[in-house]
Amino acid sequence: MASESGKLWGGRFVGAVDPIMEKFNSSITYDRHLWEVDVQGSKAYSRGLEKAGLLTKVEMDQILHGLDKVAEEWAQGTFKLNPNDEDIHTANERRLKELIGETAGKLHTGRSRNDQVVTDLRLWMRQNCSTLSALLWELIRTMVDRAEAERDILFPGYTHLQRAQPIRWSHWILSHAVALTRDSERLLEVQKRINILPLGSGAIAGNPLGVDRELLQAELNFGAISINSMDATSERDFVAEFLFWASLCMTHLSRMAEDLILYGTKEFSFVQLSDAYSTGSSLMPQKKNPDSLELIRSKAGRVFGRCAGLLMTLKGLPSTYNKDLQEDKEAVFEVSDTMSAVLQVATGVISTLQIHPENMARALSPDMLATDLAYYLVRKGMPFRQAHEASGKAVFLAETKGVTLNQLSLQELQTISHLFSGDVSRVWDYGHSVEQYAALGGTARSSVDWQIGQVRALLRAQQA
Amino acid sequence: MASESGKLWGGRFVGAVDPIMEKFNSSITYDRHLWEVDVQGSKAYSRGLEKAGLLTKVEMDQILHGLDKVAEEWAQGTFKLNPNDEDIHTANERRLKELIGETAGKLHTGRSRNDQVVTDLRLWMRQNCSTLSALLWELIRTMVDRAEAERDILFPGYTHLQRAQPIRWSHWILSHAVALTRDSERLLEVQKRINILPLGSGAIAGNPLGVDRELLQAELNFGAISINSMDATSERDFVAEFLFWASLCMTHLSRMAEDLILYGTKEFSFVQLSDAYSTGSSLMPQKKNPDSLELIRSKAGRVFGRCAGLLMTLKGLPSTYNKDLQEDKEAVFEVSDTMSAVLQVATGVISTLQIHPENMARALSPDMLATDLAYYLVRKGMPFRQAHEASGKAVFLAETKGVTLNQLSLQELQTISHLFSGDVSRVWDYGHSVEQYAALGGTARSSVDWQIGQVRALLRAQQA
Amino acid sequence: MASESGKLWGGRFVGAVDPIMEKFNSSITYDRHLWEVDVQGSKAYSRGLEKAGLLTKVEMDQILHGLDKVAEEWAQGTFKLNPNDEDIHTANERRLKELIGETAGKLHTGRSRNDQVVTDLRLWMRQNCSTLSALLWELIRTMVDRAEAERDILFPGYTHLQRAQPIRWSHWILSHAVALTRDSERLLEVQKRINILPLGSGAIAGNPLGVDRELLQAELNFGAISINSMDATSERDFVAEFLFWASLCMTHLSRMAEDLILYGTKEFSFVQLSDAYSTGSSLMPQKKNPDSLELIRSKAGRVFGRCAGLLMTLKGLPSTYNKDLQEDKEAVFEVSDTMSAVLQVATGVISTLQIHPENMARALSPDMLATDLAYYLVRKGMPFRQAHEASGKAVFLAETKGVTLNQLSLQELQTISHLFSGDVSRVWDYGHSVEQYAALGGTARSSVDWQIGQVRALLRAQQA
Amino acid sequence: MASESGKLWGGRFVGAVDPIMEKFNSSITYDRHLWEVDVQGSKAYSRGLEKAGLLTKVEMDQILHGLDKVAEEWAQGTFKLNPNDEDIHTANERRLKELIGETAGKLHTGRSRNDQVVTDLRLWMRQNCSTLSALLWELIRTMVDRAEAERDILFPGYTHLQRAQPIRWSHWILSHAVALTRDSERLLEVQKRINILPLGSGAIAGNPLGVDRELLQAELNFGAISINSMDATSERDFVAEFLFWASLCMTHLSRMAEDLILYGTKEFSFVQLSDAYSTGSSLMPQKKNPDSLELIRSKAGRVFGRCAGLLMTLKGLPSTYNKDLQEDKEAVFEVSDTMSAVLQVATGVISTLQIHPENMARALSPDMLATDLAYYLVRKGMPFRQAHEASGKAVFLAETKGVTLNQLSLQELQTISHLFSGDVSRVWDYGHSVEQYAALGGTARSSVDWQIGQVRALLRAQQA
Repeated sequence: MASESGKLWGGRFVGAVDPIMEKFNSSITYDRHLWEVDVQGSKAYSRGLEKAGLLTKVEMDQILHGLDKVAEEWAQGTFKLNPNDEDIHTANERRLKELIGETAGKLHTGRSRNDQVVTDLRLWMRQNCSTLSALLWELIRTMVDRAEAERDILFPGYTHLQRAQPIRWSHWILSHAVALTRDSERLLEVQKRINILPLGSGAIAGNPLGVDRELLQAELNFGAISINSMDATSERDFVAEFLFWASLCMTHLSRMAEDLILYGTKEFSFVQLSDAYSTGSSLMPQKKNPDSLELIRSKAGRVFGRCAGLLMTLKGLPSTYNKDLQEDKEAVFEVSDTMSAVLQVATGVISTLQIHPENMARALSPDMLATDLAYYLVRKGMPFRQAHEASGKAVFLAETKGVTLNQLSLQELQTISHLFSGDVSRVWDYGHSVEQYAALGGTARSSVDWQIGQVRALLRAQQA
Repeated sequence: MASESGKLWGGRFVGAVDPIMEKFNSSITYDRHLWEVDVQGSKAYSRGLEKAGLLTKVEMDQILHGLDKVAEEWAQGTFKLNPNDEDIHTANERRLKELIGETAGKLHTGRSRNDQVVTDLRLWMRQNCSTLSALLWELIRTMVDRAEAERDILFPGYTHLQRAQPIRWSHWILSHAVALTRDSERLLEVQKRINILPLGSGAIAGNPLGVDRELLQAELNFGAISINSMDATSERDFVAEFLFWASLCMTHLSRMAEDLILYGTKEFSFVQLSDAYSTGSSLMPQKKNPDSLELIRSKAGRVFGRCAGLLMTLKGLPSTYNKDLQEDKEAVFEVSDTMSAVLQVATGVISTLQIHPENMARALSPDMLATDLAYYLVRKGMPFRQAHEASGKAVFLAETKGVTLNQLSLQELQTISHLFSGDVSRVWDYGHSVEQYAALGGTARSSVDWQIGQVRALLRAQQA
Repeated sequence: MASESGKLWGGRFVGAVDPIMEKFNSSITYDRHLWEVDVQGSKAYSRGLEKAGLLTKVEMDQILHGLDKVAEEWAQGTFKLNPNDEDIHTANERRLKELIGETAGKLHTGRSRNDQVVTDLRLWMRQNCSTLSALLWELIRTMVDRAEAERDILFPGYTHLQRAQPIRWSHWILSHAVALTRDSERLLEVQKRINILPLGSGAIAGNPLGVDRELLQAELNFGAISINSMDATSERDFVAEFLFWASLCMTHLSRMAEDLILYGTKEFSFVQLSDAYSTGSSLMPQKKNPDSLELIRSKAGRVFGRCAGLLMTLKGLPSTYNKDLQEDKEAVFEVSDTMSAVLQVATGVISTLQIHPENMARALSPDMLATDLAYYLVRKGMPFRQAHEASGKAVFLAETKGVTLNQLSLQELQTISHLFSGDVSRVWDYGHSVEQYAALGGTARSSVDWQIGQVRALLRAQQA
Repeated sequence: MASESGKLWGGRFVGAVDPIMEKFNSSITYDRHLWEVDVQGSKAYSRGLEKAGLLTKVEMDQILHGLDKVAEEWAQGTFKLNPNDEDIHTANERRLKELIGETAGKLHTGRSRNDQVVTDLRLWMRQNCSTLSALLWELIRTMVDRAEAERDILFPGYTHLQRAQPIRWSHWILSHAVALTRDSERLLEVQKRINILPLGSGAIAGNPLGVDRELLQAELNFGAISINSMDATSERDFVAEFLFWASLCMTHLSRMAEDLILYGTKEFSFVQLSDAYSTGSSLMPQKKNPDSLELIRSKAGRVFGRCAGLLMTLKGLPSTYNKDLQEDKEAVFEVSDTMSAVLQVATGVISTLQIHPENMARALSPDMLATDLAYYLVRKGMPFRQAHEASGKAVFLAETKGVTLNQLSLQELQTISHLFSGDVSRVWDYGHSVEQYAALGGTARSSVDWQIGQVRALLRAQQA
């Protein structure tokens, strides 16, 4: 209200308005994404006002009709922004007034941009999370289908990136699919907390005009009503949760991408990425680079950065609405777009990936059966710690002699333990090895089948 | 196995062992926290081995008895660590062997430190999260009790830290309590995902000796069994989720702390921190500083830092167990300790805080009723946008005249709108103002009572 | 080269190209910002090729002329992107070829996009950092000018947000200005490390065609030449440093913003933000909110998020160029834009801020002189610890009697220490108090003048 | 001062003190690391007091002597902490008083814990950063020595983890060494900003007793004096910078560790880690895991987490000292310890690493010379873009024929371009290939020698 004298202290001139400040303050460049849900929220609110006696039926119909017209203009790309439309709410109400006149001025009764914007954002995210859920399920389903089809292919399992034990290729696929089922479970939980109605909270104190929030809830199909108006207008937990959900999901995908990048090197040669997901080099004619996987891996950083940024913004903020909260939307939009692209690209990568089973088989080596050799002795009654040591001696003996572990003669093995006998030869069969791991979760065929069943059941339950 | 030649390239000498590497690699200084759950896991595992026929009943009893002895030594502080005890698992098994001899060497059959450590951590966190849940509920209950007792005290509600509208003090308390109920809901979800049995996953491929994982689950009272052994030994989602849970909870507490620090300044003077939660100055004799609240606010950074650190560690990691995962435990222990202290201190602060209702009342000013003045006109039929503008004119008129808003005469108001009449005087009653906000979630007494009921019901449901 | 069979595993269909992957991979939407520096780099490189005998003088002139034409089209907004222009380098070279024909195909000789893009980015950032430096200096200069003009205004200094000691308002301004001089010093250091030529590093192995990198350095006016081609094409230290520079600068500005938001509350009423940097409420007619300051405070989160994101992306990445590095540019562009806006808005805020010296004076209270009272006794020979205790007793006595500290009679003071005598009355003069703090860095006028001189000298040195 | 009534709202009981709050508030468990610098700072300050006439020569000598005694007790491990020693400053002064009586009470005259603690921390970090610098130089020197000794070993250079071009093994070592020289340069800059004297700033307003800060600077050998007392007591830029320095250095080491982990896999088999830096598996007898490298890689997360945490703590904090700043020290101590261990372990790893030159050589394949084949054509006058395409055709032709690139006959090559002639055979010599890359920074021997010289010169300059 008071106007400053304009006394300057060496700074650049500022009159009544500073164009840089106007741009800094404006959110229309990105919150226009909310046009549809903003109209949706306003339509519900006008019904609430009518029920509360603040609008006549006729006025309500005028507003509803006008809002439909606004939505139509957005949908058809004919909506014209004015320079003064600092945000989507202002833009839509300004246009409504142009369309229906002064009655438009009744729409905002008892409402504040504080409850309006967070209602819009929740509506938008509810829809968007459903889309992401579907994309995630599609990725998991693709992985499970592939795991089922290729479950008889063996290859080396690695720990510390050192060859550890023979496993099924499907076991590897499922290890990543199972991780993603947790993301999908978590996303449902986030959606539950997104799906809460804040409308009717006003700026801070609530609604003083008898608006029936249960009606608003029903109109907008929210699962619950926010409990406290101060909290409702200023909490962004659902945004933080969504950003963290995406961050954790991305660490899973970054780990899968890392594996596939490794498996696709010349040195491993287990897999080959489809051309559709590779690119060439501007300098080196022979190169085919796994850009899709590298981008997936890298996006883990970007997405987490948004999560970190929001939490820092929230930290130590005083109660209720502060303009700082305006940082929420760009983070949501960017991360949603990224997740959508990443999930689809990952699905494409997995569904078109070529594998080289012969290279996988070739990479299995007898030393990976050293653990099984120890178990052989355990089964003959030797305590595991001694068996582990005896197997280690066999590994050392083979190394010393320059042969592979399975090339040690029975006599040689018997210098280590007299428990070795002719049946030790069965140990060297990789197919036999994996079938031993039949406990739930292991790499035996029966266990992998059980895993496939478990993941399929989870998906069915989540989609229900 | 091979021993390096020791050829040096200008570096410091290293023989067979580098003491700095040994210390760098060792985890016993912190994973000793797991002594009890490590024994608990081993006891269950020995029952599994017995059932699988890998231990006789006698051997199992020997092991169980020995493990009880190990636990007793830890409990009594008589357990002696050896220099070679690089981690708690090694330490406990080493001691078991000293106590019962070679049979101890059978305990680790089919088990790997990979599935053992994550089982231990899950057991520890399950217990610890229950403790944190209880502390969180205690804090929420304290807040709700206080909100109920003080619900007739009014004070200014702020948005953008500018006085906005009169609200109940209880409405403010509840705004923070409601935020904490979401933390408490989320913690239950994290606990559900912590409570999953990984034991029986071996190092990577699963368990080849027929160990019955359902028996292990029952013995250790886990809610479910991990689906895939590769995932089970290397996923740390439950740690990341816990750290994020703590981070978000801390942003809530940091915001409450910020409010209370402000309300406790000389300028606001709404609250006074108990001496038990303040400290003096080494230089300024008159100072009493809100150290407890500042520490709470600051810990949001520390806790989030741990979350950020773990996610960065996980990003791009290859499949299955890599030593990088050893970073999980210190983060969990530190954050658990921090949360425990913070929740208890916050409870102490809230339960001993003195409030100054007279200062709160004095801080209410008629300009905070400008919104209600607009609603007065709305109730007389004026569209809200016009009413908002009319009320703005009244504010400006009062400022110009150097009077408060309620000191404008009826005549003066009528120069702005002829809808003003004698009953406008009721607007200036703060008690009347808040009672208007009777929609669900608002600041009217009935609505605040409803909120108290809602939070109490939530607590009951969560505790069940 | 090989084309995959397109075998699908339940995923969506993909042919030779996946449009989502194409969009995911493309960078043209943001790296078009680099059009000018890309042309600049290519012009220098073509001179290098000519010197190396890989271009004739005529060919070089053709290319130079063509590149000027490309730049002109960008500058005039007539450059037309093709759907296949995946990045700015491709787009510019494609257009060059359209303009000058096959000779364009010689430009990329010995160059890779790996060294090209990082050269472009360094050129862009070098220019941009100069702009940011100038904006930062302008902000600091504005603050110092204001500090000089208002140096006789006193107000309370706070620690722990509790009134601590009387200080000069200018002392407060300078405390923030001094912090910013460190940012400005750090930015110069970052600029030094930005200003290093990577061109001539090729994809990884260097340049095999005798291109004279010292000529390229001279042409592009770089301060130094990168030492190792593998490092040069894949290190993004200068980006990380820039993002951290911005993050730390933003924490400074967030702290200043926090102070000003507090000082602008009704309760403090020390300052009033210009209308140009405030906004109203859609609901509450009396509100004037410090949106500019809240946005500045919040951007600290966003900017840091970008820094966190990049570091996570870099962590654990294998040597040399990986597509992950494509994440660098959007971070740089966004943070540069944010910093530019924030610095200008902050300058506007400071230069138009109204202060209320009378409110500032009113907020000084005698208890803030308790430290000086202790020093009074110290000067009479009492050890500080006893004096601190004696002053504390005086504070307690005044509280007990319900008077201010300076209202205690000499007799009352003498019950605490007989060292008190008539000259104690001088202690109660705020002007006298601040003048005591004359050591370097203190709040005495002479010391504040010294500070102003120091900051001005720093600015001069940095600008040189 | 006022004591609260103890009215409880359902919370746990609290009397005058809450033991959990006491522990929460106390810093002695970690700030005892500062004992030596705290004594050092106090000795300098007592000289300052003497010069200012606040201590007699005799009193000063008493204090100096007493402080030496305190230090001696710490050094000998005989210093006994009291339960009331909440921090190192309190502990040391309490003990001093026990040793020399009331004169000890004069030491804190004009000083505050606010300027004391930050002086201590700067002294500690100054010393510690020198140590870290030396460790970093030692690592770089080790790398350069090794690069020099092994500069004739070739192996594949990778981009996108795909084989790109033949390079020298030394070129790879130097790429990481050069990155570390930037860390070392940055550390010197951070040290410069650490080395600034804050003592004499008091709690906020400065020093009112004429203490000569230039004397303090000289006594403590600081490079400069802090400019503004408010800033000096509350800025933690030097801590944030240090943590970021460590974070960026760790991303470098994480990338080197990632490379070495890959190169040490069975599939690559380029390097073998010394036993001193590997560990075995509790389950798999044949395993040797690169734990040292994995821990280095993982610590990048931990260290960055501390940086993120501190920045979040600082964000939005009001001016001057707030207890939140107490978070600085644990971060510094932990990160310092981590960096010290990581740098020493990395030096040990590099200096004992075995390499397998024969495997490196075997991994070079003719397709990696496709770029050189293109350059062959370029040298014969073909524009690079056409040459790149021609070379791509040759790669495709070889793939189609199932031969390696160098097995294509001259006739076959001439079907692609008639510019091919007999001298094309020279292209297939890896040694000849690398020697082409003779521009500064490339992989030719002369260029690698130049790099070694550059890094050595940098080290000499930095150490000076």
